[in-house]
Amino acid sequence: MAGKQLALPINRLESFSDGVIAIVITLMIFQIKIPAINENATASDVWNSLFTLLPSLVAYVLSFVMVGVLWVNHHQFFHQLKNIDRKLLWYNLHLLFWMCIIPIPTAFLGLHFQKPEATALYGFTMFMTAVAFAIMREYVHKSEHLLIDHLSNTLRKKLRRKLLMTVGLYFISIFTGYISIYIPISIFVLVIVMYFMPQNIVVEVAE
Amino acid sequence: MAGKQLALPINRLESFSDGVIAIVITLMIFQIKIPAINENATASDVWNSLFTLLPSLVAYVLSFVMVGVLWVNHHQFFHQLKNIDRKLLWYNLHLLFWMCIIPIPTAFLGLHFQKPEATALYGFTMFMTAVAFAIMREYVHKSEHLLIDHLSNTLRKKLRRKLLMTVGLYFISIFTGYISIYIPISIFVLVIVMYFMPQNIVVEVAE
Amino acid sequence: MAGKQLALPINRLESFSDGVIAIVITLMIFQIKIPAINENATASDVWNSLFTLLPSLVAYVLSFVMVGVLWVNHHQFFHQLKNIDRKLLWYNLHLLFWMCIIPIPTAFLGLHFQKPEATALYGFTMFMTAVAFAIMREYVHKSEHLLIDHLSNTLRKKLRRKLLMTVGLYFISIFTGYISIYIPISIFVLVIVMYFMPQNIVVEVAE
Amino acid sequence: MAGKQLALPINRLESFSDGVIAIVITLMIFQIKIPAINENATASDVWNSLFTLLPSLVAYVLSFVMVGVLWVNHHQFFHQLKNIDRKLLWYNLHLLFWMCIIPIPTAFLGLHFQKPEATALYGFTMFMTAVAFAIMREYVHKSEHLLIDHLSNTLRKKLRRKLLMTVGLYFISIFTGYISIYIPISIFVLVIVMYFMPQNIVVEVAE
Repeated sequence: MAGKQLALPINRLESFSDGVIAIVITLMIFQIKIPAINENATASDVWNSLFTLLPSLVAYVLSFVMVGVLWVNHHQFFHQLKNIDRKLLWYNLHLLFWMCIIPIPTAFLGLHFQKPEATALYGFTMFMTAVAFAIMREYVHKSEHLLIDHLSNTLRKKLRRKLLMTVGLYFISIFTGYISIYIPISIFVLVIVMYFMPQNIVVEVAE
Repeated sequence: MAGKQLALPINRLESFSDGVIAIVITLMIFQIKIPAINENATASDVWNSLFTLLPSLVAYVLSFVMVGVLWVNHHQFFHQLKNIDRKLLWYNLHLLFWMCIIPIPTAFLGLHFQKPEATALYGFTMFMTAVAFAIMREYVHKSEHLLIDHLSNTLRKKLRRKLLMTVGLYFISIFTGYISIYIPISIFVLVIVMYFMPQNIVVEVAE
Repeated sequence: MAGKQLALPINRLESFSDGVIAIVITLMIFQIKIPAINENATASDVWNSLFTLLPSLVAYVLSFVMVGVLWVNHHQFFHQLKNIDRKLLWYNLHLLFWMCIIPIPTAFLGLHFQKPEATALYGFTMFMTAVAFAIMREYVHKSEHLLIDHLSNTLRKKLRRKLLMTVGLYFISIFTGYISIYIPISIFVLVIVMYFMPQNIVVEVAE
Repeated sequence: MAGKQLALPINRLESFSDGVIAIVITLMIFQIKIPAINENATASDVWNSLFTLLPSLVAYVLSFVMVGVLWVNHHQFFHQLKNIDRKLLWYNLHLLFWMCIIPIPTAFLGLHFQKPEATALYGFTMFMTAVAFAIMREYVHKSEHLLIDHLSNTLRKKLRRKLLMTVGLYFISIFTGYISIYIPISIFVLVIVMYFMPQNIVVEVAE
């Protein structure tokens, strides 16, 4: 009864998480600095200096979609819960922490996309985000009282397998940039495609 | 039943979108940099250097109203829905993406409003925002199960026609700045007036 | 009936406004730039360079309280409504616009508090905020269908009188800085005290 | 009855506070500036310049956890209330004010963590945050009509004792950096541990 008052409602946790995610997704664009343009610059000067923003914009698009995927999965995850406890609160804050970090490697990737250090840093942050998600999911799968009842074992296994695959792919993305930066970048695109494929959506929701 | 758990409630989607829109509309002001003023500057020096902020402020007002119009229409749009699905989620993220981009051309327009490249960039971003909105509306009009029942065909046609007109006007605004920058700026003002006119409001809500 | 779907619920409007106000109140602190400090600076060097932040911090405190007062009054205002319409939506966006502007004169006041131009700019923004609030209140008092029923004429008069007094005080604050900057600053403090005084709170809520 | 309309619902206050806290926790990361890296820098150059961000990142982690602890306690506190009044509104704004300040000493600590002035500033801000929390709690404990009924005296005493201990520890952290910066840093970690220990959680919720 006195414990009742501790019980943070799920929707409060979701809406705080939504707030943080909305800020991360929106603020990354403000890291892109408009280049200074001379008053008597020609049209081609202007377009040239605008084109220098292109890698930063592409990095922004990448992170926008990544965070979008995380947001969709975050909601789906919390819709599978019927209760939350204090530990879950901190596992969620841990996930939000790594999501808050994303703007740093995004800006770095936009400025130095041809350097393997940039993809390594980006891959590492995404790896830690996926790990934080996996820790949270493992905790919930072990704490039966938090999960809704009709989540079958088959579905759980599929969800876990997909998440572990994501963790593994991000891990590989950290180091392979030293062979060619196109490997980690292909991995990032592959993960996005993996979460977009209708096949997988069916797998996740249907039983 | 298992699919039920996926169903993201409409108000959650709206409140996430509201968060992003609130950040975009508020943060644009923080892009305006206060000019450095000498301690022994005269009153006219101070006012002169403050007046250099005027184009940035006007660009801010323009984008504030533009985003305001989008916010009002975003809500009206979601009030016509009774369900959302995963595809709509991504169409909405696509729209939010272009809205997140708006601060970049706004800052650029404030700094270089006399350059046709600035109005072209601004017009292009607004064009893509309108296109993203149109894609989302088209999808919903084709997916009967998402729409509320009492939305008449006449109203649908009117809503589509108005949106297509907006898309067309923004398209023209991209290129006409090279003739005179007053053409795209008139177009931006015209679109705002179009969405403010009481006539249209009646058209949109009454049947 | 079709008009029903337009009806933006009050709490959605409030929560969007809350979002904007939360961002304004929080982001102003990020305009304060930490001074660069030499690695071998003495303790007194460090404190001296930190003390240069003091005017900016005081300006932040002032605006924090000002926005706090506005937030409290904004809620109180919307609690007196039973309906909102599209016009009110735009009157509210107009108010939010001036609140979004507040960070600019706040930063300027923090950097140049001894210049009458800084208090003039600050006073002007607060004046426009109060005017925007007054316009919104006047509109609502004229549109009986928006107001809750048990708002007596005496209370309305008192609310209007207080708001007009605020508008007047801010108007005076714009110009009196040229006599002495202590006049506008006293006015800002006076307005805050006016809204804090328990007397007035009773006046506002009891009938 | 007329007083009813003033009654700001608790969840509105919580959600505004959540908004401010979400912005504070997220925006601190944007204060970390990516170092400029030369195009033909070697791998070790890149890692060296990235390592200069480490103290700022550690300071960010510290403040992220601190604000996380505050967020958890803020919710727990408001779950013990059944009513709020105008005074509490301002006590809460006072607490939010000091939380909004946190990014300043965090950035300063990240840049100059070896200077006692940095830990003093950080400790002072955390001290004021704890004091603001204590003021709010004392007010509520004296105003019986705000508290839920089943909050026993034993629990109240424990909550008060823990909060006072936090206030005391932060007070010590302000000055002890001049002996060794490891003392205040240990104190900051100690406070976090204190709020993480399961023992304490039981104390707080069980009766």
